[in-house]
Amino acid sequence: MKLAPGPASKKLAESVAHFTQKPLLRLEHKLFPDGESYIRFEDSVKGEDVVIIQGLHPPQDKHLTELLLMADLLKELGASKVRAVIPYMAYARQDRRFRDGEAVSILTVLKMLKAAGVDEALTVNIHSPWVLENAPLKVVNLDATGLLAVSLTELVGGRPLVLSPGKKGLEMASATASILDAEYGVIESRRDTVTGEVAVEIGLDPSGRDVVLVDDVVSTGGTMAKCVELVRRRGAGKVVVACIHGLFIGDAAEKIQRAGASMIVATDTIPNPYVFASVAGLISSHLT
Amino acid sequence: MKLAPGPASKKLAESVAHFTQKPLLRLEHKLFPDGESYIRFEDSVKGEDVVIIQGLHPPQDKHLTELLLMADLLKELGASKVRAVIPYMAYARQDRRFRDGEAVSILTVLKMLKAAGVDEALTVNIHSPWVLENAPLKVVNLDATGLLAVSLTELVGGRPLVLSPGKKGLEMASATASILDAEYGVIESRRDTVTGEVAVEIGLDPSGRDVVLVDDVVSTGGTMAKCVELVRRRGAGKVVVACIHGLFIGDAAEKIQRAGASMIVATDTIPNPYVFASVAGLISSHLT
Repeated sequence: MKLAPGPASKKLAESVAHFTQKPLLRLEHKLFPDGESYIRFEDSVKGEDVVIIQGLHPPQDKHLTELLLMADLLKELGASKVRAVIPYMAYARQDRRFRDGEAVSILTVLKMLKAAGVDEALTVNIHSPWVLENAPLKVVNLDATGLLAVSLTELVGGRPLVLSPGKKGLEMASATASILDAEYGVIESRRDTVTGEVAVEIGLDPSGRDVVLVDDVVSTGGTMAKCVELVRRRGAGKVVVACIHGLFIGDAAEKIQRAGASMIVATDTIPNPYVFASVAGLISSHLT
Repeated sequence: MKLAPGPASKKLAESVAHFTQKPLLRLEHKLFPDGESYIRFEDSVKGEDVVIIQGLHPPQDKHLTELLLMADLLKELGASKVRAVIPYMAYARQDRRFRDGEAVSILTVLKMLKAAGVDEALTVNIHSPWVLENAPLKVVNLDATGLLAVSLTELVGGRPLVLSPGKKGLEMASATASILDAEYGVIESRRDTVTGEVAVEIGLDPSGRDVVLVDDVVSTGGTMAKCVELVRRRGAGKVVVACIHGLFIGDAAEKIQRAGASMIVATDTIPNPYVFASVAGLISSHLT
């Protein structure tokens, strides 16, 4: 097995090489002046089992093209098997036809991966795991909730409260809480159908307690910032914002900090300034 | 037949609709805050023969993803046939393995188009037409040299000189010259292997004559600007720079103008401020 460090995930690939003790292929990568990507492998891959590591975080389309070019090239150069570790999966939120005529973008992306020669993919905490049941190739979905939670143990004290900013994340909050030996709950927003006013309910009282707000992904940070503000207003002590995928679009992190978060932590599925836990070990243990 | 106006080529699609008198599908397109594209067709396409019009000019990877999403979606929604008009083909210059281990990117792109459900593609003046012999799908390559040349007739007078900035464009210069009833030649640069100095030869004397510098694509404009400067220094009258594909990366156009070009003209394969001739008619005549 050899590892191909994609331009989007070089550092993570180096960590995976460290854990697996497998060699990294030398990749020449550049951008032409017009913005097109150039890909070249400097080492022979004939007959090799190659694992590409390339996240699909922004710029998603650039990273996707690079991944497709790498996979197709590896097969053309004679690699016997090509796997793709995609720590962050792009287009994963467009996972069903919400309205007539819509693209189910994630399925198109997976179809392209298969067509480019990817035999199997590994990803981390994909938005809707059930979408993989219809995937045109095998995609293993790893769960980094546990390792993120473990990294939080030293950050919060007393009997912390783990809260999810929305029902969808309740399972993640529950898993995190069990490791932190904490209570957990959900912050629910309900819009009054008559007045249009949004009422927010926490269920548990954050007064005087450390709070961990946990979600799979922080994108523009709008919802998260509102939740931070809310628990601070209700008397929370330290507020830690934790996520698997730290997209932090625009001023997302600043927004969350201004709202009163004492710390932001994320994993390294996406390179970001708030990496506090690495998925390299998790990924490595699934590469055999 | 119905036309699908891709986000990259809306105006050209409207022109093609005008020529062909075929309806344009209503496409809902937006970008999510994280940069992902959203695609939705508002009209039914069941059983339809649909022609997508989407150029792959910069940002190439964004436009490619959109094209793949549209093609796959049309097939999923029941379109009987999906063609793609790609007035500018991305990654067309990486058309062979110049060095060991390199991606032949254009073939990967064509493979993705086929996998996404494109049954046939049309493009305009692809960089190396011979690459299409190995294409995994049928790609018709249209030649816009003639219509560009015709548009030049009113711009230059006397017995103009048509020059190609390099041997590769000699055929295009010849075709242009025959329509303009002009002489043609090539501007050749030769590097002295001992001194490293670059000598430039024109072969024909541009002194006192209008000059058309013609090439398939103007990218960063560096070579073109040098050629303009050269013929101006050798006494050329009016100098017109003409190309099929006006990429005009960065300050390319300004560079060419500062070098002394009196006019820059391009076709509308790529939206740009120097459109002087449209390929809409040419494309339309090939859509039956």
